Amino acid sequence: MFTLASDFGTPYPAAMKGVLLSETDARLVNVAHDFPRQDVRTAAFWLREILPSFPPAVHLAVVDPGVGTDRRALVVRAGDHALVAPDNGLVRPAARELADGEAAVECFQYHYAAEETASTTFHGRDVFAPAAAAVHEIGVDRLHELDAVSPVDDAVDLVFPDADVGADRAWGDVLVVDDFGNAITNIPGYFLDGMDDVTVNGTHAPVESAYAAVDVGDRLVTVGSHGCVELAVNQGRGADAFAVTVGDSVELD
Amino acid sequence: MFTLASDFGTPYPAAMKGVLLSETDARLVNVAHDFPRQDVRTAAFWLREILPSFPPAVHLAVVDPGVGTDRRALVVRAGDHALVAPDNGLVRPAARELADGEAAVECFQYHYAAEETASTTFHGRDVFAPAAAAVHEIGVDRLHELDAVSPVDDAVDLVFPDADVGADRAWGDVLVVDDFGNAITNIPGYFLDGMDDVTVNGTHAPVESAYAAVDVGDRLVTVGSHGCVELAVNQGRGADAFAVTVGDSVELD
Amino acid sequence: MFTLASDFGTPYPAAMKGVLLSETDARLVNVAHDFPRQDVRTAAFWLREILPSFPPAVHLAVVDPGVGTDRRALVVRAGDHALVAPDNGLVRPAARELADGEAAVECFQYHYAAEETASTTFHGRDVFAPAAAAVHEIGVDRLHELDAVSPVDDAVDLVFPDADVGADRAWGDVLVVDDFGNAITNIPGYFLDGMDDVTVNGTHAPVESAYAAVDVGDRLVTVGSHGCVELAVNQGRGADAFAVTVGDSVELD
Repeated sequence: MFTLASDFGTPYPAAMKGVLLSETDARLVNVAHDFPRQDVRTAAFWLREILPSFPPAVHLAVVDPGVGTDRRALVVRAGDHALVAPDNGLVRPAARELADGEAAVECFQYHYAAEETASTTFHGRDVFAPAAAAVHEIGVDRLHELDAVSPVDDAVDLVFPDADVGADRAWGDVLVVDDFGNAITNIPGYFLDGMDDVTVNGTHAPVESAYAAVDVGDRLVTVGSHGCVELAVNQGRGADAFAVTVGDSVELD
Repeated sequence: MFTLASDFGTPYPAAMKGVLLSETDARLVNVAHDFPRQDVRTAAFWLREILPSFPPAVHLAVVDPGVGTDRRALVVRAGDHALVAPDNGLVRPAARELADGEAAVECFQYHYAAEETASTTFHGRDVFAPAAAAVHEIGVDRLHELDAVSPVDDAVDLVFPDADVGADRAWGDVLVVDDFGNAITNIPGYFLDGMDDVTVNGTHAPVESAYAAVDVGDRLVTVGSHGCVELAVNQGRGADAFAVTVGDSVELD
Repeated sequence: MFTLASDFGTPYPAAMKGVLLSETDARLVNVAHDFPRQDVRTAAFWLREILPSFPPAVHLAVVDPGVGTDRRALVVRAGDHALVAPDNGLVRPAARELADGEAAVECFQYHYAAEETASTTFHGRDVFAPAAAAVHEIGVDRLHELDAVSPVDDAVDLVFPDADVGADRAWGDVLVVDDFGNAITNIPGYFLDGMDDVTVNGTHAPVESAYAAVDVGDRLVTVGSHGCVELAVNQGRGADAFAVTVGDSVELD
């Protein structure tokens, strides 16, 4: 099984699918192809959230502002999963999640001859899809036997900041705003245990377990599906109502 | 086979796919994941229109403004099909269509322990996808044997209004505006039989069987693929040209 | 294997999938369903670019402003591939590419009784999907044996213009602007060989093989994944920066 994720929009992802299907009969599943353009960080967040729902697979992910430069191509083994991506940190948080920690994550450079690729601008089709097909064919447990891969210990990493959680107060960051407008923070949900309401950057809101616990259009603070504190509005956009955007600091008390 | 439909946008639907694929090898087919947010009625219309094109399947549909509240989870048997959805009416019109009438529709509550679900905000992943996988595994004809389901006779229903059709005049409603901008009414297409033109809320337009029968940008009235009267513009947006939106009354004569 | 492409948005493509899956177990792969509405030319460009990445398949493509008129339905054999589409030129450029030239392309009319189709407005579901299923079932090499098809030699064609390439100067056209905002021309990439910079309609820009070779927001000219000259901006929209749109003339020197 392959999963595919990118910031390509349409129709470029279909070319990657065609390449994979020329080499394999395996199932292809789209994660998303509308990640914000060239936003490695947001895509890395979503891959970390979504990929753990999947059974063992080869995950092909391309958000690649450095396409055509000398940035390396990466294959990561994370337990029974493999991830194939540009070496820009994109799949490192997901790999840690899939492997249950950094210790079981192994990074490999995938070597390709830049001058032999069909293009310098579409490595999703010309480098990463062929790499993913090769990894799938040999199998995740034997991917180190591929001639084109060699271990590396200096792959680019990307680490989301930890929140600072006290007894009555927590400081964190907005990591992402989802399609619904919910502002997802890095503050662990247990901080809200036993609280009826909370103040977010000075704005008061009730703590609820369901969006519909408040009136349509009203603010609430909840624990999202990712286990972290989420700033929301029932049938509205929490990010707007709490006046926060990606990267903003959030203080809860 | 599973079909999937939601108002989730991206990338949340992929988490539901991951859960299903952890339990089954069956085929997954997307119906749509960009239904208007929290608009149960519009999604119910489209499920009724689209699902009858499918062979027997388990249809997983989630438009769920009440997620995390005490609204029930529903499994509906409709002939050879099953539908899994929140108990808010979403799949009832489709079920009637798939079962050729209400008589052959059976509703079951799917019991889940709210406190045991991984989240209160993503039941698509944590409740409905597991329910759909369980229904698929045991088979539609035996789904009543699942421990987690029990028959209910008070599931929330959603009924689209009937039009009032006379010999020369018909009164109906705009049920939905599609992606092309066509305003789809509930007035059966036979009302237009033999007519060359018609007046819609006072606006005159020709009755045609093809959009291109009129000039680009001109109004027409036609019978849509759903068998009902549709207000259209050749290569334009009929809803705008006829100044109607969802829920508006339409009088044809 | 089927590929599917259209300008339907959602959820109409799912109805085509349902029809295909009622007739076959074959794999379905989306190319794109958000081609610009009724824009046969842009869709034809993308089909030509994307379909050659696929192994032999039946390609179902519907961008069909003439639906319901007397325009014909077409089945095209192109080597091991078949294409099913309205007879408006949509799949002819792709067919030439798949068959390695016009000589190996064979066009057939697919006959359907207009008065027997379920609708006059949704031939994707009622004409083209059933045609594609029939072609797939009999096999591409034997599709001429289908009762419903007969050879035609006057199918509508669509030919993209050639560029005029001199030693130091080239004249071409913008064929399409992609989702990233890159303006893709018909000027072959070899024109840029050995050049460090170039003037495009009077605007100077460096010739680079990677977007990131220039600063974020700066212009560049590169050879795109399609092998032709592309006007781009690193992490921006080249079409805007070079002030060109589809159909505009481009002079490089």
